[in-house]
Amino acid sequence: MTARYWDDYTLGEVFETEPVTVSQESIIAFAEKYDPQIFHTDPKAAKDSFYGGLIASGHQTIGLAFAQFVRLGLFGENGLGGPGMDDIQWSAPVRPGDTLHTSAEIVELRASKSRTDRGIVRICLSTRVGDQEVSRYVTTTFVRCRPTEGAE
Amino acid sequence: MTARYWDDYTLGEVFETEPVTVSQESIIAFAEKYDPQIFHTDPKAAKDSFYGGLIASGHQTIGLAFAQFVRLGLFGENGLGGPGMDDIQWSAPVRPGDTLHTSAEIVELRASKSRTDRGIVRICLSTRVGDQEVSRYVTTTFVRCRPTEGAE
Repeated sequence: MTARYWDDYTLGEVFETEPVTVSQESIIAFAEKYDPQIFHTDPKAAKDSFYGGLIASGHQTIGLAFAQFVRLGLFGENGLGGPGMDDIQWSAPVRPGDTLHTSAEIVELRASKSRTDRGIVRICLSTRVGDQEVSRYVTTTFVRCRPTEGAE
Repeated sequence: MTARYWDDYTLGEVFETEPVTVSQESIIAFAEKYDPQIFHTDPKAAKDSFYGGLIASGHQTIGLAFAQFVRLGLFGENGLGGPGMDDIQWSAPVRPGDTLHTSAEIVELRASKSRTDRGIVRICLSTRVGDQEVSRYVTTTFVRCRPTEGAE
């Protein structure tokens, strides 16, 4: 898709991203650096844990969801980074071999109070494995506004 | 530190974690998988971007903060994973070579309504580079309660 300016988004628009499959290797590699709990890093110990087997860190799931959204190319050079995220919910485990499907809905569009060259886009990312939602959260990003014609 | 049961935490307790330094290589490796925006993946393009140079994905910063907390060993085999996170705020960029210092404050302790063997711990993780806070968020985790003596 072509990169969008802030002005080009519509409230309630939904984007489907490309599915992505999570391997045991990537679960362990991520967790060793960013979430070293045994049910994320050690398949044998995970088997005896509450989860009955290895599961992905929730941090990895939301990162994969965001990456798939970025890969749609909507931000391009108009994405200016974000101030935060809200209401992260992990509702079911993600296991090795699971394929994640992420939908992204534009849930808020707001002008910036301090900078007229950008606006705020809030995006709700919902990720499913089959019919089961595994994570949901809202991320906030600054996006460049369409330059005014004739402006410097 | 020794692993704690839910009963062992005190509201308002603060834990200081080991500092961790972020390399350019790890910023790029993380972002290519989890946040492929050019100011996280491409040092040259990042120089011409709004940020004036490469910065770490906010997802990486909060993951590093959580990993340093896990490495304190408080969860051990009593940590049972978490249902979510709230109010993630990224207030300043993290650049290659920056050293992150994360403090963890116990901000809420709650019994579980559905399971008597565990309680809920909410932890506010604040990460600084020097005196500048770069991220702050609250993570929620289930922690096993101390087994009742004589219970099966």
